[in-house]
Amino acid sequence: MAVYTDVSEDALEQFLTRYNVGQLLWCKGIAEGVENTNYIMATDKGQFILTLYEARVSETDLPFYLGLMNHLAENGLETARPIRQNDGVIYSQLCGKPAALIEFLEGVALKSPNNQSLFQLGVQSAKFHLIAADFKLSRKNALNLAAWRPLLASCGDNLSHIAPDIKIGLQAFLTDELNYLEANWPQNLPQGIIHADLFPDNVFFMQGELSGIIDFYFACNELYAYELAIIINAWCFETNGELNITKVKAFFRGYQSIRPLEKVELEAMPILCRGAAIRFLLTRLYDWINVPEDALVIPKKPTEYIRNLSFHQTIENFSEYGIE
Amino acid sequence: MAVYTDVSEDALEQFLTRYNVGQLLWCKGIAEGVENTNYIMATDKGQFILTLYEARVSETDLPFYLGLMNHLAENGLETARPIRQNDGVIYSQLCGKPAALIEFLEGVALKSPNNQSLFQLGVQSAKFHLIAADFKLSRKNALNLAAWRPLLASCGDNLSHIAPDIKIGLQAFLTDELNYLEANWPQNLPQGIIHADLFPDNVFFMQGELSGIIDFYFACNELYAYELAIIINAWCFETNGELNITKVKAFFRGYQSIRPLEKVELEAMPILCRGAAIRFLLTRLYDWINVPEDALVIPKKPTEYIRNLSFHQTIENFSEYGIE
Repeated sequence: MAVYTDVSEDALEQFLTRYNVGQLLWCKGIAEGVENTNYIMATDKGQFILTLYEARVSETDLPFYLGLMNHLAENGLETARPIRQNDGVIYSQLCGKPAALIEFLEGVALKSPNNQSLFQLGVQSAKFHLIAADFKLSRKNALNLAAWRPLLASCGDNLSHIAPDIKIGLQAFLTDELNYLEANWPQNLPQGIIHADLFPDNVFFMQGELSGIIDFYFACNELYAYELAIIINAWCFETNGELNITKVKAFFRGYQSIRPLEKVELEAMPILCRGAAIRFLLTRLYDWINVPEDALVIPKKPTEYIRNLSFHQTIENFSEYGIE
Repeated sequence: MAVYTDVSEDALEQFLTRYNVGQLLWCKGIAEGVENTNYIMATDKGQFILTLYEARVSETDLPFYLGLMNHLAENGLETARPIRQNDGVIYSQLCGKPAALIEFLEGVALKSPNNQSLFQLGVQSAKFHLIAADFKLSRKNALNLAAWRPLLASCGDNLSHIAPDIKIGLQAFLTDELNYLEANWPQNLPQGIIHADLFPDNVFFMQGELSGIIDFYFACNELYAYELAIIINAWCFETNGELNITKVKAFFRGYQSIRPLEKVELEAMPILCRGAAIRFLLTRLYDWINVPEDALVIPKKPTEYIRNLSFHQTIENFSEYGIE
């Protein structure tokens, strides 16, 4: 939740003259997007999201993110399309920040997704993978396996108070896990562009139907099956910490109805789930330790992902997730 | 800026069944309103503001606030109308908080209002006073003259670091001022219901025209001229601390085109401006000192109102404001 950059109506009206979107009617800062400043705004021609990219999103990645969104929308994925300026460019500067105007997407993020939501998410994420395969740009995953050890190091040495239940200490627990992951990470799985942040916040539904996917600012080239591992972590655990296998089944049924998984991808699910858990564990840990004095965002404690990781460590075979 | 209460789509859809407003399409938390949680939402029948009243707004005052908004809208003031539920009630409970659905008002709050904006604000605030005079409920001003001394006391004794430039210390400066105000506060001026928080954030404009007034949660029975004193403080000082007399003139010209002021009201402007300055100075001081650990709102430092108050203390006659 954040409005970091305060845009005056004069600056906004000036910015909008670069587009063929009509006259500004209203504009409100919304509590969405942790990395960016987002406004919802309306003109006499429609409603839009105005995004200003703050320091954590690199401007050099914008042609990839915005181009990908445009490619996906043009090829039939339910997603928001960036609006081009009159001179054809897809973003420019507003209040000293890179800024883009994006089609407004109706729908609500679900707090309690059900099996049907998971099936639809499976279908859409598989379509995402297939459609994105034709997109011509690529982007390395800045938060891949190689990035995790330096990320842990940057969290410092004093971590035990965060998870006092772990007898060997959180630091040793995570170091052991990284040793395991680095020694066993799967090679040669199918890969391509993934969303890499398909959390419930970023998927909208309307009247029970998936209406769109947003927030492409972690999209990158990665193992396709790693996307599925992120989704198991983000969507399929109940608040009591138990994995809901029915949700996992529904999700995989949806995904495989569009893109059947190879046996090697299924076999890699336990380690990929461990990887996805530690990736979000580490960024939440970092944010938890480094919350700035003037933060508008309350960071999420990493506890949930420590729990997920511990669970995945007990899995020996993908069939234990209920996947067939 | 705040979304304090997180409303799930299930709870919201359940809440909406009490209204005849159609099917939910989307809902987003907005960074508006310091006292309440606000969402902008759309159904297939229109757009609305959903407000959940947090602890600082007393539920017993809601019939006054919402009834006043309804009365003003029905009598032609540009303002948002609360929507009635099917059983006729104007608010009920959502997520354990009192909540109301309010017509969405287009327009943007101005960062740089000009003379024309001030003239229109004058016209609308005078219309507000005349139309509200027929409203049948009343509400005492909880932040009136009598409340300021206890409010100062609740800020504690250690205030000097907040305004090191004040030689006698902020505490003594404010105590002296309260002594003066209590001894000299005007009696028997025209009074009735005022908005009492007509800051630029709460007034929307569209294509240069005032499109509406929002946020009635400080409205109360008070001296009409005190509303004007609040507006001088909130709209007519430039960022360099100087009073813009042209703006004051434009505002009063607008106001008096609808409700001419009595001579006693004009004569009281300097002391009312001091009162309005200390009222916002004290609440900002309190919030500055008492910012909670988990605040989503960064409080405004009281500096601006210390400066305003010092300025008003130099005024001997209302004509020095440029008012005729």
